[in-house]
Amino acid sequence: MAETLNISYSSLYEFTRNIFLSMGCPEEDAELATEVLLSADLRGIDSHGVARLSGYIRLWEKERINAKPNIKIVYETPSTAVVDGDRGLGLVVAPRAMKTVIEKAKNVGTGWVSIKNSNHFGIAGYHAMMALEHDMIGMAMTNASPLVAPTYSLERLLGTNPIAVAVPAKNQPPFVADFATTTAANGKLEILQRKSLEAPAGWIQDKTGEISTNPHELKDGGALLPLGGDRDHGSHKGYCLGSIVDIFSAVLSGANYGPWVPPFVAFLSPPANPVGEGIGHFLGAMRVDAFRPAEDFKNHMDNWITTFRNAKSIEGEKVIIPGDPEREMQIDRLVTGIPLLIPVVEDLSALVKKLGVKDPF
Amino acid sequence: MAETLNISYSSLYEFTRNIFLSMGCPEEDAELATEVLLSADLRGIDSHGVARLSGYIRLWEKERINAKPNIKIVYETPSTAVVDGDRGLGLVVAPRAMKTVIEKAKNVGTGWVSIKNSNHFGIAGYHAMMALEHDMIGMAMTNASPLVAPTYSLERLLGTNPIAVAVPAKNQPPFVADFATTTAANGKLEILQRKSLEAPAGWIQDKTGEISTNPHELKDGGALLPLGGDRDHGSHKGYCLGSIVDIFSAVLSGANYGPWVPPFVAFLSPPANPVGEGIGHFLGAMRVDAFRPAEDFKNHMDNWITTFRNAKSIEGEKVIIPGDPEREMQIDRLVTGIPLLIPVVEDLSALVKKLGVKDPF
Repeated sequence: MAETLNISYSSLYEFTRNIFLSMGCPEEDAELATEVLLSADLRGIDSHGVARLSGYIRLWEKERINAKPNIKIVYETPSTAVVDGDRGLGLVVAPRAMKTVIEKAKNVGTGWVSIKNSNHFGIAGYHAMMALEHDMIGMAMTNASPLVAPTYSLERLLGTNPIAVAVPAKNQPPFVADFATTTAANGKLEILQRKSLEAPAGWIQDKTGEISTNPHELKDGGALLPLGGDRDHGSHKGYCLGSIVDIFSAVLSGANYGPWVPPFVAFLSPPANPVGEGIGHFLGAMRVDAFRPAEDFKNHMDNWITTFRNAKSIEGEKVIIPGDPEREMQIDRLVTGIPLLIPVVEDLSALVKKLGVKDPF
Repeated sequence: MAETLNISYSSLYEFTRNIFLSMGCPEEDAELATEVLLSADLRGIDSHGVARLSGYIRLWEKERINAKPNIKIVYETPSTAVVDGDRGLGLVVAPRAMKTVIEKAKNVGTGWVSIKNSNHFGIAGYHAMMALEHDMIGMAMTNASPLVAPTYSLERLLGTNPIAVAVPAKNQPPFVADFATTTAANGKLEILQRKSLEAPAGWIQDKTGEISTNPHELKDGGALLPLGGDRDHGSHKGYCLGSIVDIFSAVLSGANYGPWVPPFVAFLSPPANPVGEGIGHFLGAMRVDAFRPAEDFKNHMDNWITTFRNAKSIEGEKVIIPGDPEREMQIDRLVTGIPLLIPVVEDLSALVKKLGVKDPF
């Protein structure tokens, strides 16, 4: 029994591009959005790839996504800017803003852009990795719909607010960290829900604040927990991290923050009294040669990476360099294709009918 | 039975200043180092205050701390610099470098300094908070002696590598996060050791990589665990965070990284083949008005803070704004004095004899 259907990257690319074109995206934007979205499918972060495409369409139908945004810098200094995403796809807004970040880093050593009025931007890692080819360290973070209860809170005030940092090396592949600031990302709960499995204690709490192992708990007033899980295991640190992402992404830019971040799903309305515009992202880049000669830096990164990779490990395991599993997955899936879960295929097939694009299956 | 002895801030200040003067620190440096060190005692982070003073002296006796450093910028761009701490006290090197950071932020919006050839810098929060009075967001991080095993590693490759972020508000006190990137800081283990208590599962592993609750495990080849504790609870994310701190603090600056970071204790020698100079820090500041008018930002921070503080909470608890407990402790201890544990008093009394300074007790 096949739980998945395999599709080549090129077929999925053509299909996804057609979907964005049928939304009314300009061709260049449709291709950029496709590349960013599919980078998740290639890297094995299946929750952030085409599985979200029909959700984007529903938000567009409700006019919460603008297919032809006028993305512009509204405020800047030599090393910073605020970008207004004009309700565009985060998949387009973020990489455009990252170009500004990189330009500023070229000029004054580092660049930092806070973005308002945007939407879901795919995987944070894509944007951070844009810096690598310029011999820069790239950074990307975003706030997100409130699903997370700070330590001791019964209310959901933060999103899973991920952080990505990409660091270039020389002969070694780059170091690419990309992680939600919760114990587990929401996508992992969805997997447990589908498989009818329980969640480990420390991932979620119920509506009374008790630890729960029920992956459906969020539908009944429960919440995801900050990285750490509980106070004894440092959940206040995960709460700090999620808060920092929220402040950098939204309080700096003028986007919505905390409980005001609009939900990613079209069937839930955004809060009635917004404190800002759309959701927020924060992007940064630092030229490594703004600190020391790039060759020196990259040689030492190679040494850092090989030292960690070759460390003595627990039997049957090895020390993983952040980014290695995703890069290996990408190499594999470019050759063997991308396995889509049947419910995702059904979802995309419905889009084929609705929008009249060519059927890829 | 008094477990502690109370001492006024002013007496402890005078004593500590005298100790640094007797090491040969110039007067200005002695006062700066005292202020930074005692900010830990005032804020209740007792592991990082005068409890470390005799350790600094022992490192100075071994000529691993230079009391008269020539701290200088060795490389810079408009928004970045590398500072060589010349083996000075981190307590002096870091706040000096933070001045450069703030100056750069004034000029181009943000400032970022990576520091090599330094030593333990006290609490990260002190340096981050230096930015607040300039209406800037401050950041500080440092690498540290390797006590932490990355996920699946049997080797200790990272320090507790803390991160501090300080954000100004308007009528509310600032948001000040300051946390080790491990489940628990080493100071918490020391408390358990003194009280002969077990550690919660998830703080430490033994030399075979099994979870241990023995707070003495590090003496027998064990290791602290990254924030998250184990793979199921996101320890790979804590490992990423600790790694990012290490890379920003040391690979960017040319300090020692990973297992090469010199130990903070004088009875352990630094590694024979260093990959850099001393330990490393990374400091940053962003002018909030490099993104939006400062008043707008600070009004929204007030709203952020009050929203989180007033959230519905678990019975008997409340949602804590990062920095609140430490600030309240500081207000309290400035009035009622600082309670020093008897072993710390004995340690300081030994310094009185050794260095011939005035006895504060």
